[in-house]
Amino acid sequence: MPEVRFEKISPADFFYRNRDIAGFSSPSRSLYMSIRELIENSLDACEIGRITPNIIVELSSEGDSGEVEVYKLRVEDNGIGVDAEHIPRAFATVFYGSKYGYKQSRGTFGLGGTMALLYGQITTNKPATITSSKGGREIHRFVLMIDIVKNEPKIFKHEVLENEKKWRGTTVEFYLEGDYTNSKAKIIQYFTHTAIANPHASIMFIDPRGRLYCYPRVTTRVPDPPEEALPHPVGVDVETMSRLLSLSRDRNMVSFLMKNFQRVGEKTAKEVLDMAAIPWDRNPRKLSHDEVTKLVEAIKKYDKFRAPDPSSLSPIGRELLEAGIRHMLNPEFLYVVERPPSSYSGFPFVVEVGLAYGGEIPQSDTIQLYRFANKIPLLYDERADVVWKVVNERIDWSTYKVYFPAPLAIVTHICSPKIPYKTVGKEAVADRPEIERELVVAMREAARELRLHLSKIEKRAMAKKKLDIYARYLPLIAKFAAELAERKEPPKIDDLLKSLGVDQRMVEEARRRALERLQELYAE
Amino acid sequence: MPEVRFEKISPADFFYRNRDIAGFSSPSRSLYMSIRELIENSLDACEIGRITPNIIVELSSEGDSGEVEVYKLRVEDNGIGVDAEHIPRAFATVFYGSKYGYKQSRGTFGLGGTMALLYGQITTNKPATITSSKGGREIHRFVLMIDIVKNEPKIFKHEVLENEKKWRGTTVEFYLEGDYTNSKAKIIQYFTHTAIANPHASIMFIDPRGRLYCYPRVTTRVPDPPEEALPHPVGVDVETMSRLLSLSRDRNMVSFLMKNFQRVGEKTAKEVLDMAAIPWDRNPRKLSHDEVTKLVEAIKKYDKFRAPDPSSLSPIGRELLEAGIRHMLNPEFLYVVERPPSSYSGFPFVVEVGLAYGGEIPQSDTIQLYRFANKIPLLYDERADVVWKVVNERIDWSTYKVYFPAPLAIVTHICSPKIPYKTVGKEAVADRPEIERELVVAMREAARELRLHLSKIEKRAMAKKKLDIYARYLPLIAKFAAELAERKEPPKIDDLLKSLGVDQRMVEEARRRALERLQELYAE
Repeated sequence: MPEVRFEKISPADFFYRNRDIAGFSSPSRSLYMSIRELIENSLDACEIGRITPNIIVELSSEGDSGEVEVYKLRVEDNGIGVDAEHIPRAFATVFYGSKYGYKQSRGTFGLGGTMALLYGQITTNKPATITSSKGGREIHRFVLMIDIVKNEPKIFKHEVLENEKKWRGTTVEFYLEGDYTNSKAKIIQYFTHTAIANPHASIMFIDPRGRLYCYPRVTTRVPDPPEEALPHPVGVDVETMSRLLSLSRDRNMVSFLMKNFQRVGEKTAKEVLDMAAIPWDRNPRKLSHDEVTKLVEAIKKYDKFRAPDPSSLSPIGRELLEAGIRHMLNPEFLYVVERPPSSYSGFPFVVEVGLAYGGEIPQSDTIQLYRFANKIPLLYDERADVVWKVVNERIDWSTYKVYFPAPLAIVTHICSPKIPYKTVGKEAVADRPEIERELVVAMREAARELRLHLSKIEKRAMAKKKLDIYARYLPLIAKFAAELAERKEPPKIDDLLKSLGVDQRMVEEARRRALERLQELYAE
Repeated sequence: MPEVRFEKISPADFFYRNRDIAGFSSPSRSLYMSIRELIENSLDACEIGRITPNIIVELSSEGDSGEVEVYKLRVEDNGIGVDAEHIPRAFATVFYGSKYGYKQSRGTFGLGGTMALLYGQITTNKPATITSSKGGREIHRFVLMIDIVKNEPKIFKHEVLENEKKWRGTTVEFYLEGDYTNSKAKIIQYFTHTAIANPHASIMFIDPRGRLYCYPRVTTRVPDPPEEALPHPVGVDVETMSRLLSLSRDRNMVSFLMKNFQRVGEKTAKEVLDMAAIPWDRNPRKLSHDEVTKLVEAIKKYDKFRAPDPSSLSPIGRELLEAGIRHMLNPEFLYVVERPPSSYSGFPFVVEVGLAYGGEIPQSDTIQLYRFANKIPLLYDERADVVWKVVNERIDWSTYKVYFPAPLAIVTHICSPKIPYKTVGKEAVADRPEIERELVVAMREAARELRLHLSKIEKRAMAKKKLDIYARYLPLIAKFAAELAERKEPPKIDDLLKSLGVDQRMVEEARRRALERLQELYAE
């Protein structure tokens, strides 16, 4: 039998070997991903400190290496800054992060920023520079690379600078191969959409051609920072339960359940424990393997938990979403639905849907989708997203008087402490049944409003046509009737016309058009 | 400023928290994924030893836990077996595997089998049992769980049994939550398609309802085991280059390049080194950081490398693919294209495309796709796959006389030491331009054949119609002509009809049908 060589690789090495799955496939897509990951870190770093974000992104060309170009990317924010001790690992260790908690944030995988630097390193072999301060006396600057095999930072230089101007924030600067020509459209689209979902942010982008794209803040109302919440019992599995039990300092199981989970009061705790046949006063750290299993099974079977607490969610809100969509699409018709909080596997979520029709939206055979999740735009892999499925497979648009090609655009926003992304690249949301259902309900509500609107337009057009016929023929009929009766004057029909809603101007207009049509006919 | 808590999590913990991205989302999908990952491991374990696979999969119900059912899954193969020392980590450590080399295999991420066990563990809290032997005196049996926080196995029991019958292979047995009712269709489809792409394998599946699905082997010709190859210089980045340099025992750079890369001869090596301004006799272990960068840049700019060596690839082959498709779809028309090897980023790949039309394929508005990669079927996320893009966006089917609804099915197989999957769940292949191009070329070739076929059918139908008219009217005309000329006998037209290709049978048939039609008309 052949020798089989086994090997253990580090997470950094795994993503180095498989960067396609983190979205870093082509040079154009990788450039887009790098910008995106760093901006999302910056927005999170502001939100957590209730800061109105000022983000400056600078991309400059450094010449080409073979077939592709090398760029320098610099992203500066005024967020809360990173403690010096955490800087190297926060940026140069995969799966080292601050976003593993139970709260809504743009980043989720503790991977994006490091992936961008890793990609830059393997394509240019140059170190990255991270500068950060929490606003105190010192600014820390690290020049570093990633030891991919060990999944650790390699620090080349660590400078401590005096913070005279009390600067606070983080600057990331590194080199990477990219293709701006082919990613420009997506990058600009990303900025535009991010500005819409984050109207309190000011974002500037200087592109490699020296052009400045400016997205000023539209409101200074900073959204409430998302709060860390306790896990909801539904969706908790044996692994999480065992970890919580082992860390518990509670003296009995009733207080353990009440303190470690949301939506669990004394009565609920006791009922669940009874179902699992575990005494109320058991020591949480002494539960047997079987008891843990029974406890989790009892929770799964218990059907009286209240829905997860949605207070930690931060939706965009109808008002801001409406303003954003008007600004972006300038539609004739717009209706925004914000659904009440719902939950899947113990995670709360909120769905917002905006349906826009007509105006500057071009006619198209397909529906234009604008997808957002936790306030970031999702621009790739549209067809793998639950939104695509709902829009194209769950809704029969002809029921709502929409016939294609139509000028129809749909904007969706899903927010949750845990977005069920299908990929590490965070581009498509999985079709969890609960999320799908909320999207369908929201979409139907908006579509019904659209149908009303289109019916009104239809009725108006019908009424107009009818009046047009009156305006054109009633005067003629009156005239002919007078001639038949050998009267000199046709009967007065002004009052009749008026009662039908036709005025003199419309009669003149109808006569003019009838004449034009006659002339055309003779000319042919 | 708020306190930010940083945390480093293990790879096992990462995939535990984000199992959606590994394809383990719903209970039905997770059951499908578990079966799939273990079968693929089994097939790889046979292929590597040139063994005709006998795989037995047994899924049995163990009752329900709350809303979903618990199953026991047992997969047994006759592969090469796993060395006892590697068993625990091979099945209970994420990113520990034997498939990180440069060769074609079904598994690629060193993740699947462990993910299945991890999913089983967190949903049932029960240990898994792994039994394996390399065919020697001993059989090793481990009962274990995964320490998710540490990404290490927790061994409960290790038995060494006497191998009286010289059994060789591996058996994996564990418990998991699942939903067979909703995944049955996909699971059976998976087995059917796997059998088509692996005609040398015998697979048996006993489902929870006690039904036996049997997929006997169709050929005993075992495909050549894929070979491990050296990396191709194109696509090698500074990270790989640095690792190879640090491990090198070569005395100079020329021999380093020749021995560590495929397709590099002495002349090529010297030319590349000259471009990078590195002396030929430099010690590989003493290259500076800048020299490594320059070497990689020179390789990128050097455009005279021969294409990657495709000898390590193992396509299905026209013959087996054709037999498989006929068996599966029984089409009226079938054409299979096997493209010559091509490459992307230094990885060789081969594309095979089968186009089937008519017969038992049902009429549909969409094209039925059957996607394979390294001999495994891909059944989810079709719309995110490069094949979907090519079929639906790159080919104008009306050019090939295909008008929908049409009975059209397309089977594709991509094989490569490195399939650029978009997701860890291995369901969709990224649209790398080189792969997309090969698919387009293959598809066009097959579509042209289809057009010829459809043209022939069209012509045949036209000709038939024409002959039908002759058969119906020529005898009548002859009769009328005779009557007009007051002759008793109509002229002999048999020879004329024969020269047109019409025989007596057709004349009779035409007369019969004309009479039927007349009767119908009178009856109405």
